[in-house]
Amino acid sequence: MNKIQLDETICALATPAGVGAIGVIRVSGEQSIQIVNSIFKGKNLLEVPTHTLHFGKIMEGAELVDEVLVSVFKGSKSYTGENSIEISCHGSPYIQQRILHVLVQTGARLAQPGEFTMRAFLNKKLDLSQAEAVADVIASHSEKSHKTAMNQMRGGFSKEIASLKERLVNFASLIELELDFSEEDVEFASRPELKELVQKLYTLIQSLVQTFKMGNAIKNGVPTVIAGKPNAGKSTLLNTLVKEERAIVSAIAGTTRDTIEEAFVIDGIQFRLIDTAGIREHTSDSIESIGIEKTYEKISQASIVLYVFDVNETDSNQLETELAGFKERDLVLIPIGNKIDLGNAEQIRAKFANRNDIIYISSKEQQGITDLHKRLKRVIESDQIHSDVIITNIRHFQALSLAGESLQNVLESMDIGRTGELLAFDIRKAIFHLGEIVGDITTDDLLENIFSKFCIGK
Amino acid sequence: MNKIQLDETICALATPAGVGAIGVIRVSGEQSIQIVNSIFKGKNLLEVPTHTLHFGKIMEGAELVDEVLVSVFKGSKSYTGENSIEISCHGSPYIQQRILHVLVQTGARLAQPGEFTMRAFLNKKLDLSQAEAVADVIASHSEKSHKTAMNQMRGGFSKEIASLKERLVNFASLIELELDFSEEDVEFASRPELKELVQKLYTLIQSLVQTFKMGNAIKNGVPTVIAGKPNAGKSTLLNTLVKEERAIVSAIAGTTRDTIEEAFVIDGIQFRLIDTAGIREHTSDSIESIGIEKTYEKISQASIVLYVFDVNETDSNQLETELAGFKERDLVLIPIGNKIDLGNAEQIRAKFANRNDIIYISSKEQQGITDLHKRLKRVIESDQIHSDVIITNIRHFQALSLAGESLQNVLESMDIGRTGELLAFDIRKAIFHLGEIVGDITTDDLLENIFSKFCIGK
Repeated sequence: MNKIQLDETICALATPAGVGAIGVIRVSGEQSIQIVNSIFKGKNLLEVPTHTLHFGKIMEGAELVDEVLVSVFKGSKSYTGENSIEISCHGSPYIQQRILHVLVQTGARLAQPGEFTMRAFLNKKLDLSQAEAVADVIASHSEKSHKTAMNQMRGGFSKEIASLKERLVNFASLIELELDFSEEDVEFASRPELKELVQKLYTLIQSLVQTFKMGNAIKNGVPTVIAGKPNAGKSTLLNTLVKEERAIVSAIAGTTRDTIEEAFVIDGIQFRLIDTAGIREHTSDSIESIGIEKTYEKISQASIVLYVFDVNETDSNQLETELAGFKERDLVLIPIGNKIDLGNAEQIRAKFANRNDIIYISSKEQQGITDLHKRLKRVIESDQIHSDVIITNIRHFQALSLAGESLQNVLESMDIGRTGELLAFDIRKAIFHLGEIVGDITTDDLLENIFSKFCIGK
Repeated sequence: MNKIQLDETICALATPAGVGAIGVIRVSGEQSIQIVNSIFKGKNLLEVPTHTLHFGKIMEGAELVDEVLVSVFKGSKSYTGENSIEISCHGSPYIQQRILHVLVQTGARLAQPGEFTMRAFLNKKLDLSQAEAVADVIASHSEKSHKTAMNQMRGGFSKEIASLKERLVNFASLIELELDFSEEDVEFASRPELKELVQKLYTLIQSLVQTFKMGNAIKNGVPTVIAGKPNAGKSTLLNTLVKEERAIVSAIAGTTRDTIEEAFVIDGIQFRLIDTAGIREHTSDSIESIGIEKTYEKISQASIVLYVFDVNETDSNQLETELAGFKERDLVLIPIGNKIDLGNAEQIRAKFANRNDIIYISSKEQQGITDLHKRLKRVIESDQIHSDVIITNIRHFQALSLAGESLQNVLESMDIGRTGELLAFDIRKAIFHLGEIVGDITTDDLLENIFSKFCIGK
């Protein structure tokens, strides 16, 4: 993808690699219909209407490669916004390669990752943040991450950005108008009004920026650690949490087991378990070994620590000592009193009466798990998300942060009475960064960087 | 698949599981269009023409599940021969499961493996041997296996069977007519003519049966062993053979590496390496250790043994001793004189002048590999395949063998002058077995057994 070549016809396998019932090969570009037509035995695809399906044969010279079904999309009403064809063939890697080979022989070239979606962006079918959301939609594996990505793909986030930008552009124009009349010392842009608006925008951007931590957690799973002394019941709890999810997922197709191997979903929110083998396996002596730097490193990546202890083997002071190590950290600590089935419930609660944040469970007897679910859900919901729009993309986070900084500069400049030139400069900068998000301003490098993270065929 | 229910609407993911650009969900059955239409926001699918594509949204109640493209097939012109729909959605396992879930909620049920193709068979879109070839087409990973399966799917094999059957049915009718007139002792079916025809049919069936060994090799790869003393250069040769193929395959997509891990393709024929770790790793002493029973077991599965020896370290007598172990076996032995780069070519050839079947190579210097390719190709081609029709399916092999046995009984009965009843009985048996192949006679159990080997969604 050294240069962006819209005049070339690209092709790629769009379905996952491997053996399946069918595979789909995508072909897109001005010449795509001619190219496929020249290797297709069936109707003349140049003459069929758009959005129609045709059975026929893909030929390599006189030799039959496969019997296929082609979907024809003419003009701008395709995914990419240009002529394109989807070839639905048998799900054999051998056949798919043969067809790609014939396409390449006939004038197409293999597509780069994300190149179909990049074309959709360049042909103005999607703005950049929508295009980026396509990859998130594909990667989403929980209800919340799916909803957030779908919302962004459908332009929810872009709309917010566009309205912010519009308001800024108005002010920038007024201030630049002032500069044209600078000798006359007029103020077209009312300073108190400007200040109020910039303040408002700044607050809005800050609140968007603040959704990123949560947005990222929703997208990638809330990073969670299960910690505790040996034999406190960490593995059983882990299995309980993970197994439930597996059961739900595999009831339908049993396909995603690998990707959720170390994750579980509660009410549509995915929790991703950070591998704390260090904590789980190597603390055979005592809680002191938690002090190992490496372990703390792991914990510092977590948003939530589930600290499991045995209610029968631990007294209140000991628990406080064990929990003390987590105190200064920016995370939510949930103490989990395990093995309540082995003691008297009232006595146990009395023993830890000084804390009201303990969730009492029995991993073995499946008691208290619902309480834990509720608490985990509450942790996420109580996070300061008051907006429907959630930032999940680090590029957007950075651009919004920079826009926020520029707006802060504007506010500061106004406070200390800097010139209109400086105001205009910072407002333009804020506009630039907002424009970066939706793709008003792009470079080949930026596009390459964004789309190279896509899968091939998208 | 306890009972075959054609009135139910079935659905399944038809593309390989996993993350990709797109995934395709198939829905088939009388009610399929109504069912999809009820969860689809877009055009009214009940009113669109067949073989058209429509962009829209799959909804779960008020909630958007995905933006999709649906392909509508009405009536008998679909793959299954009944109303069907393909939903092309984002390649996210989460979304695919959600859509399947909504379909099931709306009245479809998840399909069994091969159920779409079984419906195609039951709706007379394919005969049974063609339906079986669909699975072979998908599984094929070399030119020859692909060609053979395509030929069978397109009816090549069925035609041969059908014509055989027709001729038998004629004779059966004549003989049964005789039985009706048995008191009158007439012969409508001329015995010499019948004998000649049965003899012809028997020969034809035998030649088809004989293609099975090769057909099976083509389908599953020709079982090949690389043997030889330690340091003869077995691993280097293996890498040379396997790597070339890998390079060819992965140049296009790099997807099938796993399936061909221990295989290589020469001129469209796949050779499958039998794991001879036993030979390769544990013969540190000498060739005697080849005598271990386990190793012989491995070799007995092979059609071809590539016996690698070091031309510089081996003399003619020694080579004969080493090769003697393979003599009584039903396999093709190719002695490979390796490391010719380390000696004088003429002297080496003179040393082994008593054998003219040695291929001289240098694995290291890539010399002689083309000669080896040619020899391997010749081994396959010289095999007694004079027919374009090749049997690759063990079920067909068995049915043909049984048909052959029945015909042999017919010939025998004629020789010793058995009654017309017995003749008719054996001819009917032959017809029955030929009918089994194309599916004239089927049971639910047989269908279940055949289609359960398919992948889901096909």
